[in-house]
Amino acid sequence: MTSVTSLFAPVDADLQVMTENLKQLVGAQHPLLGAAAEHLFGAGGKRLRPALVLLAARATMPGCDITQRHRRLAEIAEMIHTASLVHDDVVDEAEVRRKVPTVNALFDNRVAVLAGDFLFAQSSWYLANLDNLTVVKLLSEVIRDFAEGEIRQGLSQFDTTLTVERYLEKSYYKTASLIANSVKAAGVLSSVSAKVAEELYCYGRNFGLAFQIVDDILDFTATAEVLGKPVGSDLASGHLTAPVLFALEENPQLNAVIERRFSESGDLERALAWVERSKGVERARALASQFARTAVLHLDALPPSASRQALVELADYVLERLY
Amino acid sequence: MTSVTSLFAPVDADLQVMTENLKQLVGAQHPLLGAAAEHLFGAGGKRLRPALVLLAARATMPGCDITQRHRRLAEIAEMIHTASLVHDDVVDEAEVRRKVPTVNALFDNRVAVLAGDFLFAQSSWYLANLDNLTVVKLLSEVIRDFAEGEIRQGLSQFDTTLTVERYLEKSYYKTASLIANSVKAAGVLSSVSAKVAEELYCYGRNFGLAFQIVDDILDFTATAEVLGKPVGSDLASGHLTAPVLFALEENPQLNAVIERRFSESGDLERALAWVERSKGVERARALASQFARTAVLHLDALPPSASRQALVELADYVLERLY
Repeated sequence: MTSVTSLFAPVDADLQVMTENLKQLVGAQHPLLGAAAEHLFGAGGKRLRPALVLLAARATMPGCDITQRHRRLAEIAEMIHTASLVHDDVVDEAEVRRKVPTVNALFDNRVAVLAGDFLFAQSSWYLANLDNLTVVKLLSEVIRDFAEGEIRQGLSQFDTTLTVERYLEKSYYKTASLIANSVKAAGVLSSVSAKVAEELYCYGRNFGLAFQIVDDILDFTATAEVLGKPVGSDLASGHLTAPVLFALEENPQLNAVIERRFSESGDLERALAWVERSKGVERARALASQFARTAVLHLDALPPSASRQALVELADYVLERLY
Repeated sequence: MTSVTSLFAPVDADLQVMTENLKQLVGAQHPLLGAAAEHLFGAGGKRLRPALVLLAARATMPGCDITQRHRRLAEIAEMIHTASLVHDDVVDEAEVRRKVPTVNALFDNRVAVLAGDFLFAQSSWYLANLDNLTVVKLLSEVIRDFAEGEIRQGLSQFDTTLTVERYLEKSYYKTASLIANSVKAAGVLSSVSAKVAEELYCYGRNFGLAFQIVDDILDFTATAEVLGKPVGSDLASGHLTAPVLFALEENPQLNAVIERRFSESGDLERALAWVERSKGVERARALASQFARTAVLHLDALPPSASRQALVELADYVLERLY
């Protein structure tokens, strides 16, 4: 099995510089946030989003080095992502993420709200100073989509009338929008044509949806050890994802158990067993695979390069995580 | 005594449209936020910031109507202000503001974080779509300053080494930056000269500092009835403002009581009495008055108009609140 970081090879040095910059930025001025910065940008984060931005930057600048603006864009993508995780954890009252305690659990809600606001604010400021109105619009769309996704997630908890279509919309807001728009923005900073910019957007959109579906499948199929949190956590907190939505079509009993919010003893265990016995995971896997394959097709618009190849292999890797 | 809203006369109709737009924007799509929207943009808010933006817009467009962009800018200023209040209340665990329960108290932290994020996100998006990079930079600076102010406020609680200078810096980040930059942005949207834009910024900066100092004085001199919260709340939570900082210079005993965080019985009452008996309030009033007078001088750069006159009188009104 490929390790994801080996696929980042063309941008390894770039990612290291970025991580140092982000730790400095948050930690240097504010002791209060310093510890949170180490926690947020230290070991553990996969840095997938900035890696995609940097790979798209290199793939659209063949034969040249990438610019300081490309690097700044990668930082912005990671900051927006991190800020949204920190606030999500406050909203969900989550205590663990990636096997380590969340900022709200380790410090408190106060530091978590401040740290998230600081990162959003700093990313707005970096963004404005990229001096490119198209890129400002693309990324402000992402910030808006995040808020929309957060709210929709809150509204659809334990809602068994959720359709796969609305689940995909929510996944776009929560995950794919950032990847699609920031990968496109990397192309815009490389002055690619409108056509190529659109292809980059489509790569990111499909990649992001595949990624989110796989994440949602792993919540059922991985071990608690690998997840760093109990198996079935999403279902337990009422987030109905692809495997459950497909399972609901087969098994009407599941419906009632979810609607009573697992209030009777053994409800959650029963629900998990029903999802496992259904074709939910298999159908979700097929859906993810379809998005990943579609993503790769859109890379034909780019000239061949090590970075383009890495973008292709990352789409395969998303699915490999399941095995 | 003048009522503040009578000074808004030249932009009364504009403010009403704005309030309706904001309630619609937040409430229409999301039942979860709908109640919070009514709460946030309903009765009670003074709408001072959008009023200043709209007055600056009208004062810089003599003989013409203001544009949709000016109106949007006023909405953005009010949204950023409201978002920061909502998150401040989560950070401070405040339960009452303007005599009504805060969003976190009335709903919960979850809704408050979401509502604040939604407002910040929406304002970023509106901002990007003003299609003016100068204005994007001015307002992204404000968002960054807010985060900086929030953090500094957290760091300087109960810190008796705080100087008046650092208190004014913090007040700039928390209050004056939004007023200064958004009033300047109104001028930029009217295509004023760089010189006039700078004068508008100076008006807003001085106005904002005067306003914040007066607010901080009222925490000591107003009644709990008028404040809608107990007298001396700022001091009780360790926020050392102008009256206290001046009082500290006279009375070294105050120092110890603050540093032990009012842990002994009667500490807070003693501290309040010491501030009252000192020249703290008087000196803070003189400082506010100086900023308000300076603000008005910068309006000479504008042609005479009812809106310019309202901006002059608003600076006087800031001080009148004390009597």
